[in-house]
Amino acid sequence: MPVSRSPIEDLANGFARRHIGPSPQEIAAMLRAVGAPSLDALMGETLPAAIRQAKPLDLGPALSEPEALAHMAELAAKNQVFTSLIGQGYYGTAMPTVIQRNILENPAWYTAYTPYQPEISQGRLEALFNFQTMICDLTGLDVANASLLDEGTAAAEAMALAERAMPKKTKAFFVDRDTHPQTLAVLRTRAEPLGWQIIVGDPVSDLQKADVFGALLQYPGSSGALRDPRPMIAALHAKGGLAVIAADLLALTLLASPGDLGADIAIGSAQRFGVPMGYGGPHAGFMAVRDSLKRALPGRIVGQSIDSHGQPAYRLALQTREQHIRREKATSNICTAQVLLAVLASMYAVYHGPEGLSAIARSIHRKTAVLAAGLRKLGFTTRNEAFFDTITVDVGDKQSEIIARARDENINLRIGDGTLGLSLDETTTPKIVEAVWRAFGGALSYAEIEPAMRDALHPTLKRTSPFMTQEVFHLYRSETELLRYMRKLSDRDLALDRAMIPLGSCTMKLNATTEMMPLSLPGFAHLHPFAPPEQALGYHALFDKLETWLAEITGYDAVSLQPNSGAQGEYAGLLAIRGYYKSRGEPHRKICLIPSSAHGTNPASAAMAGMEVVVVECNDRGDVDVDDLRARAELHSPNLAAVMITYPSTHGVFEEHIRDICDIVHAHGGQVYLDGANLNAQVGLARPGEYGADVSHINLHKTFAIPHGGGGPGMGPIGVKAHLAPFLPGHPCCDDTGPDGFSHGGGTVAAAPWGSASVLTISYVYILLMGGDGLKRATEVAILNANYVAAKLDPHFPVLYKNERGRVAHECIVDPRALKNSSGVTVDDIAKRLIDYGFHAPTMSFPVVGTLMIEPTESESKAELDRFCDAMIAIRREIAEIETGRWKVEQSPLRFAPHTVHDLAEDHWHRPYSRAIGCFPAGTARHDKYWCPVGRIDNVYGDRNLVCSCPPIEDYALAAE
Amino acid sequence: MPVSRSPIEDLANGFARRHIGPSPQEIAAMLRAVGAPSLDALMGETLPAAIRQAKPLDLGPALSEPEALAHMAELAAKNQVFTSLIGQGYYGTAMPTVIQRNILENPAWYTAYTPYQPEISQGRLEALFNFQTMICDLTGLDVANASLLDEGTAAAEAMALAERAMPKKTKAFFVDRDTHPQTLAVLRTRAEPLGWQIIVGDPVSDLQKADVFGALLQYPGSSGALRDPRPMIAALHAKGGLAVIAADLLALTLLASPGDLGADIAIGSAQRFGVPMGYGGPHAGFMAVRDSLKRALPGRIVGQSIDSHGQPAYRLALQTREQHIRREKATSNICTAQVLLAVLASMYAVYHGPEGLSAIARSIHRKTAVLAAGLRKLGFTTRNEAFFDTITVDVGDKQSEIIARARDENINLRIGDGTLGLSLDETTTPKIVEAVWRAFGGALSYAEIEPAMRDALHPTLKRTSPFMTQEVFHLYRSETELLRYMRKLSDRDLALDRAMIPLGSCTMKLNATTEMMPLSLPGFAHLHPFAPPEQALGYHALFDKLETWLAEITGYDAVSLQPNSGAQGEYAGLLAIRGYYKSRGEPHRKICLIPSSAHGTNPASAAMAGMEVVVVECNDRGDVDVDDLRARAELHSPNLAAVMITYPSTHGVFEEHIRDICDIVHAHGGQVYLDGANLNAQVGLARPGEYGADVSHINLHKTFAIPHGGGGPGMGPIGVKAHLAPFLPGHPCCDDTGPDGFSHGGGTVAAAPWGSASVLTISYVYILLMGGDGLKRATEVAILNANYVAAKLDPHFPVLYKNERGRVAHECIVDPRALKNSSGVTVDDIAKRLIDYGFHAPTMSFPVVGTLMIEPTESESKAELDRFCDAMIAIRREIAEIETGRWKVEQSPLRFAPHTVHDLAEDHWHRPYSRAIGCFPAGTARHDKYWCPVGRIDNVYGDRNLVCSCPPIEDYALAAE
Repeated sequence: MPVSRSPIEDLANGFARRHIGPSPQEIAAMLRAVGAPSLDALMGETLPAAIRQAKPLDLGPALSEPEALAHMAELAAKNQVFTSLIGQGYYGTAMPTVIQRNILENPAWYTAYTPYQPEISQGRLEALFNFQTMICDLTGLDVANASLLDEGTAAAEAMALAERAMPKKTKAFFVDRDTHPQTLAVLRTRAEPLGWQIIVGDPVSDLQKADVFGALLQYPGSSGALRDPRPMIAALHAKGGLAVIAADLLALTLLASPGDLGADIAIGSAQRFGVPMGYGGPHAGFMAVRDSLKRALPGRIVGQSIDSHGQPAYRLALQTREQHIRREKATSNICTAQVLLAVLASMYAVYHGPEGLSAIARSIHRKTAVLAAGLRKLGFTTRNEAFFDTITVDVGDKQSEIIARARDENINLRIGDGTLGLSLDETTTPKIVEAVWRAFGGALSYAEIEPAMRDALHPTLKRTSPFMTQEVFHLYRSETELLRYMRKLSDRDLALDRAMIPLGSCTMKLNATTEMMPLSLPGFAHLHPFAPPEQALGYHALFDKLETWLAEITGYDAVSLQPNSGAQGEYAGLLAIRGYYKSRGEPHRKICLIPSSAHGTNPASAAMAGMEVVVVECNDRGDVDVDDLRARAELHSPNLAAVMITYPSTHGVFEEHIRDICDIVHAHGGQVYLDGANLNAQVGLARPGEYGADVSHINLHKTFAIPHGGGGPGMGPIGVKAHLAPFLPGHPCCDDTGPDGFSHGGGTVAAAPWGSASVLTISYVYILLMGGDGLKRATEVAILNANYVAAKLDPHFPVLYKNERGRVAHECIVDPRALKNSSGVTVDDIAKRLIDYGFHAPTMSFPVVGTLMIEPTESESKAELDRFCDAMIAIRREIAEIETGRWKVEQSPLRFAPHTVHDLAEDHWHRPYSRAIGCFPAGTARHDKYWCPVGRIDNVYGDRNLVCSCPPIEDYALAAE
Repeated sequence: MPVSRSPIEDLANGFARRHIGPSPQEIAAMLRAVGAPSLDALMGETLPAAIRQAKPLDLGPALSEPEALAHMAELAAKNQVFTSLIGQGYYGTAMPTVIQRNILENPAWYTAYTPYQPEISQGRLEALFNFQTMICDLTGLDVANASLLDEGTAAAEAMALAERAMPKKTKAFFVDRDTHPQTLAVLRTRAEPLGWQIIVGDPVSDLQKADVFGALLQYPGSSGALRDPRPMIAALHAKGGLAVIAADLLALTLLASPGDLGADIAIGSAQRFGVPMGYGGPHAGFMAVRDSLKRALPGRIVGQSIDSHGQPAYRLALQTREQHIRREKATSNICTAQVLLAVLASMYAVYHGPEGLSAIARSIHRKTAVLAAGLRKLGFTTRNEAFFDTITVDVGDKQSEIIARARDENINLRIGDGTLGLSLDETTTPKIVEAVWRAFGGALSYAEIEPAMRDALHPTLKRTSPFMTQEVFHLYRSETELLRYMRKLSDRDLALDRAMIPLGSCTMKLNATTEMMPLSLPGFAHLHPFAPPEQALGYHALFDKLETWLAEITGYDAVSLQPNSGAQGEYAGLLAIRGYYKSRGEPHRKICLIPSSAHGTNPASAAMAGMEVVVVECNDRGDVDVDDLRARAELHSPNLAAVMITYPSTHGVFEEHIRDICDIVHAHGGQVYLDGANLNAQVGLARPGEYGADVSHINLHKTFAIPHGGGGPGMGPIGVKAHLAPFLPGHPCCDDTGPDGFSHGGGTVAAAPWGSASVLTISYVYILLMGGDGLKRATEVAILNANYVAAKLDPHFPVLYKNERGRVAHECIVDPRALKNSSGVTVDDIAKRLIDYGFHAPTMSFPVVGTLMIEPTESESKAELDRFCDAMIAIRREIAEIETGRWKVEQSPLRFAPHTVHDLAEDHWHRPYSRAIGCFPAGTARHDKYWCPVGRIDNVYGDRNLVCSCPPIEDYALAAE
């Protein structure tokens, strides 16, 4: 890495200036507006002096954008892109470039937020609906969710679902021994704290004996073996268990679907639908269930409902199931999905259509069959007679020489016990097959072997049911049509490329293009997660540096990059605490104190980690009631495991007593889990590991610039103090001894050892470009921006919580609840009305029902903050019109919001306000207005009439046959 | 290159299927609709049998997209990216990645058409307006155009402008001997056929003596020398000549502007404003003039006017000046600009602002001064005391050893006569400066030399006037703000990523993403055009293959890739004919026969090539009147130089007698120039070189998928028969002996030897992906699509010209002229009404006034063609409502079109049709409507009140000082 700053840096054009929205002049004006003499003084009024870090961050010099890109190209070049035939859930793919450029690399898609505001998310909701339709059709099941974090966690969620659905005394779950090892590891990890037994065996012989609430069968098996699961499922059903099939999505285009086979649940990964392996992720896991299980389906589900005009419209369905309602009673802490990846996979399906997908699958099967024929000719025996794309070959003592020759051919194989596994994919060419034969010791010609090939799909398992007969999978076969379809969808959505998304607690900062570019480099995109580590030196250099940086920023001693989301980070952090106490012979320490203001994920994660939640009260100020905390810690002292606390609090305030809280918990032998959701308010100013916390997760998709992707990918690495380091997540396929020197020996929480490795490049480049000074400056401006918004809005919508000196942290809660009494206007009305002003709404009703939480982030300029505040103030004036009786609330622009072109085009207008006031309120620009495609969506209707996939179309069904 | 088709190809997912809009099923349905039994039969009815090529195209096997990308990566790797300090008009740059991703790589920008329909082009018109503003400010002149092809042609255009403005008896033009050699070569080429003398000399000593209509001074000189041009300009003015300054745009941030110095015209290149060198292009040339010359300014000019609501709106100004009106009296044949490149350069300026640009310039100057100080220390003498970024060093007999050592450091220098030139740029680092010193024989440290540096800007030439004080150059300094600005602008425009652009004669096919991707590879992007050819082996392999392919497709023997546009190709082709006759001692052959239906560029190009135009009549069918042609050829037989004919004709028909026409002209000793604008109707079916033509230009931006970029870049290579090959364009900086074996010895028509080399990658990949069969199929479907549209529209708008069998070629002219009599509806009304239906209008009033020409291209699906035809038919029904008296034309939706949200939001609606009919006619989708940001634009107002740049804003002017 270059050590000196380049002259480009000297031009006052440093990256931090580009990342931070307000100019120095604007910062000065805003400081005047909030009544602070300087940024430093404002920080002094905002953070408790007791926690301020003394030394500046030591992250090395910041690089310019060209330097950073050159450095990333060097790192990528240190990774060797072999042809990986390892399989095990990860396959080479060819993402159509039109999808790569126009979705993966398009800010209209990747900067969008989770579609909680469905009216302005119709584009990605449609793409997710397509995803669900595709999953339902391929799995032959009734309802699919909009993706899960990966295949391993999907399996764990399926197990939990089965346990909920089939309450039994013996808590045991059967797992096919031919399951991917990482899936098994995640299942074991998940089962252990809950006291569930995992029985691993051959389902043909062992399932009958087991008394289980469910079983997971891999189809085809991890080894490639293809067996008919119908008898096993029948046996399981007979004993009252639910059948989960972990299926290969592409194989399902040729094979009988899990639904047809009788399975209740299907899970798997959509990775091979065009998504690069990325050394492990991110990819979209999926889950589909029978209709009877749909209300237990975890994760997000897109459903069709109707809007105020009675027109069809999409939105997230069954939202009330989630853990923010069930809290510690939840059996899943799932928050996020892998929206961007699900969208990519769905577009791959739209691009190829059912006939294209089948053709790809047939081609892969044929190549695999030719490969097998050649190996037979060379005298090798394959373990599996029937297979789709994977064969396992007995090699005995020839293993090491074959591996060595394969390496010479730049090919990775899956190494078993006296066996070698080979999985082919859509990128496999005849030349690669010939190279494999050479590795196995024979010089064969593909063309000559091809006639000896025989179809090896299981004779009774061939697919007969049609799939993906819906119009959407048939209309966009030319690049022109597909491009226009993708553009049309993206235009329906409002993302960061058009306007501020002032979400509280979600840190919707714009990530820079330069941060996104390395992701597409082949050296980062095309590595198999279980490729030998010496082929991934670039990645490991990046992991080491990133872990070191995150440790420096948080004050921790060790970091794990495995968790794929904030919630998974929480879970991993609590498991580390659990492991720590077990190792000390204190397994009874299970009490987890959680303030009443906590995000619902906290108690759900604690429950998953086998802990018992004890709620701590908050005082009027919104702060944790330290006396209550002390009393409860004392009460539970012998069994106290941890406190989970968000800091600054979910109320957007730096509580003064954080050190006290840490001390109290420590005094009772407990650990402090500090939720890192709000780390954006601390980087460079305070380090959790320094002021008393033992473990935190770090939302890379919030603080460290991974874009939200419309609802995923995210990353939730955890940092811990040294005593917890040995209990950081481990993995069956690798040894993750980090730069901290600790071997991570905890359970496995994600399918891939370093989670969604490829998007770690984004956070890495972000830190590289910002440097310590830049990061600190970003934090300061994030706090300034929040205080500026608070100061501007307070006279109109009171700011609910401030610290003793009247300051908020990096976000603020404004309180329109009194207006509901005076005018009938709800927080929903305000949120929808903001759409007419061209804004995404702030976070609604979290953490306080009926309020709005706003986090402007450092990336928004004063101009944009003013535009937002002006909109809020204009809405307040509109509410005043209702208060004074000029408008009735039911006939007001607030209640009719969002306004669409349908409203504008009405011939007869019977509202007490004009069309212009409806659509272009307070003089908002007409020229470049974002037009919401649908009116307000009826949630109740959608949940009552649940439609989560497109109905098949007869015409296409016939054509497909 | 791989020789075998990959398995991916076998999946019926071949690229041609993705490129061609209609599916096989749709093709069958369309054939039924046009009454043809097969594509082949339709071709038989469309093309004369006499010209059909017998053999299929031999272009080698088509590659799949992944294969093509891998191949392009290999080619790029064969180019060596040295640090080129050659200068001479080309410099290393750092394009901000946010601009790269969101403009250069964004189909919303690059697939747009020339903004002839201004209402749907407001985004790029604003960006071009910014470009003009920036050019005016930096040059200190009053009016700038929206870009020219390159610096060389800008110089030639300036010379021609000076000649028009200063009519003198002696036709002589003075050129500073310190001018870039390629500029001088283009000037010489341009002057020769017109009989103008070029006097090259030192302006200080030689200008006074010369009697010239103008002079061009390079500022700073090509050698880097910086001299005060004021005395020279004064001398020139005193003698009645116009002063042209060829200026470095970046230097002008520090140096007195051409306008301040007294120049009348300034020209140059905007390349170094963030645009990669691309081995020569494309880049935006620029030209600015004093107010008094504005109506003589060539090229396109964006002006501000007002729309139907009286709101400001942009459109192309002074369109009536162009060559389609003046025809053979035109002294310029300029058609296109470099819109995409001008937009990129303007955004670079928006990103950096005046203070950023000045800082970059100052930094470069400082580094150059340090470099010079070091060289002095090493005992070298620089020729120029005052300089900006370039120094020329006397090296005597050390030249070759220094060059060799520089090569070892991966550095290219400019090689002179006993001198070496060095030009620095924004990417130059201190390490590079140190490497240069090492090449010059000394190990110096930058930090140690820096204090010895002295400011070498000419003391009397420092800039004092402010520039770029307009708001737009100050608002978008954060990436977030810039991204939103670019998105906002692109959303205002309607490009191919949203809808068909059915332009006649412009072949608006969608180019695929895969074709666009290699452009961004460093190995293609960052080569200096005058780098040693051995560093450009990848490029040269590409040139050779592309020339061979184009020769195979057209039936010619040799190809030149130099011309940067179709018009420049015509000019180069006619110059080849001129050169041929001169070489044969027949310089009197100057008569050029041109049919009356020809595009105005044809006669203008002929005039530029020193030919005399004789117009040939057309018959009622629209075909060339062969008898008239024969008579005129006979009349002018001894002096006949050429016929220029477009084939298929500009009327969209394959005339039967093309072979006869060629024979007649050949019989009289003339040459056949076949305008290749309509080559998209012939590829794979007929070869001009085979049926009688001697030379053609080939619009790569039409037939071969270079996107239009909103009005450039284009490319117009020419193909010739062997006898003309020696007269293909040559270049002073290279020997272009192509794969044809001919050394190209003609004049220089473009600044760079291979024109806009980097975009040749697009056409190359297009051919690579399509293969011969795919290209032929594309042609067939293009013809089918046109006949389908003709058949659907004929009952509603008569198709004006067909061949004897009732077929059109790849486009058709529909004739609404009768409707003007019956209803008063103009072709303009129809064009604007199409916007309400979500379409760009077809070509208006060319080649027949009052008609519309439609070329659907092969890329449009049947669904999109139907949507378009339905819109046209619905418009016809609306016209019927006027004919029957239901609506008055002045109060009809046609006259009020395009409808905007302003119309929709009106409180009072006094029109005889509803809002919904105005905005959502005939049930067009409301959901995803394209909203035109402005109403119909008043052209006359704009030309009467010409505003071509933003006024400065006082506030920012003060801030900048």
